[in-house]
Parts: sequence; C-alpha cells; structure tokens
Amino acid sequence: MAHFSLELSPRFNETDGLGHINNTVIPIWFEAGREPIFKIFNPSLALSEWNLIVAGFTIAYKAPTFFGQDVTITTEVIRIGNSSFDVKQCCWQGDKLTAEATTAMVHYDYQTERSQPISEQIKSALLNNKARV
Amino acid sequence: MAHFSLELSPRFNETDGLGHINNTVIPIWFEAGREPIFKIFNPSLALSEWNLIVAGFTIAYKAPTFFGQDVTITTEVIRIGNSSFDVKQCCWQGDKLTAEATTAMVHYDYQTERSQPISEQIKSALLNNKARV
Amino acid sequence: MAHFSLELSPRFNETDGLGHINNTVIPIWFEAGREPIFKIFNPSLALSEWNLIVAGFTIAYKAPTFFGQDVTITTEVIRIGNSSFDVKQCCWQGDKLTAEATTAMVHYDYQTERSQPISEQIKSALLNNKARV
Amino acid sequence: MAHFSLELSPRFNETDGLGHINNTVIPIWFEAGREPIFKIFNPSLALSEWNLIVAGFTIAYKAPTFFGQDVTITTEVIRIGNSSFDVKQCCWQGDKLTAEATTAMVHYDYQTERSQPISEQIKSALLNNKARV
Repeated sequence: MAHFSLELSPRFNETDGLGHINNTVIPIWFEAGREPIFKIFNPSLALSEWNLIVAGFTIAYKAPTFFGQDVTITTEVIRIGNSSFDVKQCCWQGDKLTAEATTAMVHYDYQTERSQPISEQIKSALLNNKARV
Repeated sequence: MAHFSLELSPRFNETDGLGHINNTVIPIWFEAGREPIFKIFNPSLALSEWNLIVAGFTIAYKAPTFFGQDVTITTEVIRIGNSSFDVKQCCWQGDKLTAEATTAMVHYDYQTERSQPISEQIKSALLNNKARV
Repeated sequence: MAHFSLELSPRFNETDGLGHINNTVIPIWFEAGREPIFKIFNPSLALSEWNLIVAGFTIAYKAPTFFGQDVTITTEVIRIGNSSFDVKQCCWQGDKLTAEATTAMVHYDYQTERSQPISEQIKSALLNNKARV
Repeated sequence: MAHFSLELSPRFNETDGLGHINNTVIPIWFEAGREPIFKIFNPSLALSEWNLIVAGFTIAYKAPTFFGQDVTITTEVIRIGNSSFDVKQCCWQGDKLTAEATTAMVHYDYQTERSQPISEQIKSALLNNKARV
C-alpha cells in the first residue's frame, strides 16, 4: 500500500528537561508525516475543503529520540475500510526505531459532521502511491 | 485508586485551521494532568531526580474540543504492576467527553536506563490518593 | 488602564534540554494572558468573528522560568491608538520577574484585510477594565 | 557576516483557528533557523555543553503565513559584541516576507550563570560562515 517518508530535524524547543525529545512531540511529527495522505484526499490542502479527522491512535515509545540528529518518519497505509483507514508510522533516528504508532483516520464531512465513504479513486491512490515527501 | 482532576483553559494557539483544538494538543494536556502522579514519585518535581517514563498510550477522540470554554482533565490510576502502571484520562468540556486515553508509565532509572520496582509506599499512594490539583 | 492577571502551571513538555521553560513558550503564555482583551473585542470568542491581529512584540528574558512552580502573567494595556493598542505583559515566578514583553495589537477586519478604528465603547473598556481571569 | 537558510514545511498543527500559522510558531522556526549558530558555539550540539542563551527578541509580522507551502527562514548575524551578538531573521513564503525578527544572544556559562567573552575563533566564524543548513 501507499508509503511515504519524511526527514526532519528535531528542534531545540522539542527537547524536554530530561534531555530527550518530549513524548508529546512525536504525534506532531507523525501528523506532519501524514501530509502526503492529506494531499490524496485534498490536493490543494485548502483548510476550507478539509475532509479527514483523526479518530485516535496508539503510540509506543521504543527508545529516546535526541536533538542534534535528523529523524526519518515512515508512513504506511495498512488498512482501508469503507470510510476509514489506518496508518502505521515509525520514527527512526539513525538505525534505531524510537517510536511507532497506528492512527485511525476517517474520511469526514465537516459540514454534516458525518463520515463519508472513500471513493474508489482515493482507495486506489491509498493502495498504490509511493511518493516521497 | 488514585484519581485527580485538572481544570484548564484551551489556548488560542492550540486551535488549528479547522477551528478545533488540534488532536496533538490533548496528549500535552494529559501529561499536565499526570503531574500529581509525578509528585507521588518525585515530590520536589526536580528534573535531576525524574524517575518516570512514558511507554506509550492509546487515545480516542470522541468529539471536537473548542477554544473559549474550560476543560476538565480527569486522571485515574487503573493498573499497578511491579514496575509499571496504567493511567486512564478523560477530557471533558461541559458535559461532553471529547477524548480519552490510557497511558502506560514505567518507574525508571535514567542513570542505568532500566525500569525499577515501585515501592510499597508509592503503590499505596497510587491506590489511595485522591488529591485535587 | 485595563489590567489582568493569569495564574498558570508550567507544563513538563514546556521545559527544554537546559532544564528551563523554553524561551518560545513565554509568548504562548502571554497570548493566553491576553484572553480578557480578546473578550473585550469579541465577547463570545467566536473564531468566525475574530477581529484582532498581532503586529509584533518585543520580549526580554530576565531570569530562567522553572517547571514545578506556578507563574503569574500580568497583562496591562499601555497605549490606545486609533486602530491599534499596546499591551505590556510580565511573567512572574514567585517574586522573580522572568520575562516581559510589549505586544502591538491591531483591531482588524479579516474579510477586508484592513485595520479598523477601535470604537469608543471598546476604548472605554480598555481604559477601565480590571477583571481577573 | 555569517548567514544561513533553512527550508521548512509548515505543519498542520501550527495553524490556528484563523487559518494561518499562529504568531507564536514563528519564534520556534527562528530558533530552528539558528541551529548553524548553535553549532559554531557548540559543534556537537551536546546539551551538557550548551553555552548560549536568548536575551530577548523583537518580531514583526508582515503578512499571514499559510499551511501548504514551504517557507524559507533566513538567518544573519548582524552585530558581534564582546559576549553577545544579534541575529536578524526573516520568514519568506514564496516571494512574500511574512515575519522578521532580531534576536539578542549571549555567550553564557550555565554553571556560573554568567556571560562570557566570545573567542576570536568564534567571532571569525560568525563573521565569515555562509553554510547552508
């Protein structure tokens, strides 16, 4: 299925008093890593046409992430349902997996406040796309 | 078991382009809500004596959270193991549950990078404490 | 002129690797401290009726701010012009002033993307109000 | 004098309810843009050897910054004193200048809590370096 990769530099302000990247920062990086998926659903990324919502996620921290070395966020669609799908993401620093999460996303109509079916065209893109950010 | 409650005001900068509190903000509020637990393990909250680490969490978003109305974060210890414990947290805005999460915490020695048993004294505090923040 | 005060607890994730509250956090607290002013201009705080914009600010850091002790943010209107005004804010931790800033705010119409005059009624509220958050 | 440039993608969570990047985000980007300067003072970026502190900054917002288009942060040393120096930074989105700031940094000894003179070697690097991030 579709998978993507994002390189980013941990920011100084993302460290915490223990000298590591704070645990609450990784979900922010993972949201950034899902941007190619946002583009599949909303190519212009216009906020007024936003059509995805996060239902929830499960995250596990495997090792500390440090300031001073780039990380790679990998993003992979692992399940496509009728109106929802799951995304598996990993945070790598060097050859160390520091965190992984699975996020449930819903195709959503913010006007009617209801989930909506994912079109075949989008399903196809979720199945096949392997773009790099 | 121990449970706690924290009132806070959503901040303007915590909204996102959809006009709601961004999903990545709620784990930050939940970390703030766990502060009474941090104090059970480390009464002075000194960073140099920090002895807890987040192993992971599962969060579900139930409804949007809005700017302009206070929220209540409830925090409850729901499992106490040998060196780890689980914390269930809810975010309430008015009478609406907007998010809930369960976080696995580990009593941890940052010098040796190992988990360590939770003392009977701390277990007792985790079982009984009902302080309000 | 109008002045306000906000108590808040520094959050663990707001510390940085030096063991202090990161410098980028204080402008976030100061934005939170301006909420009573937002309410003077937009009593419901509805985002769709937002009518203020930040033109800029100058901030000076006087001492480190620490996790584990509440801070008080004081907010005072110090200049009222035709369509803009200035707000002086201080961050106090115990009896120590840790940061101060002056922020220039503009009464702004987001539809036409232009500044707009401040009404006499709002000027009067800016002059007199001394509510506590 | 030394100048640097950093490309970054605004993150979805950095927008606010007005549909723009929140004003408090830009100082975070500017801190990230100063990383090459941090490296001049502390090549390993080790937190235990950190030797810079922010004395303050002045920031002006010139235009809204939007999600969905990369920004360029330019960073230039504009003054070098005995123990302090000033950094001018701009945030560009396309050909639009959206924010600019001048930050006063101090060479600082966190053990003795005192400023310390900048060595000739570092002054020379601040004068000449033109690396790209």
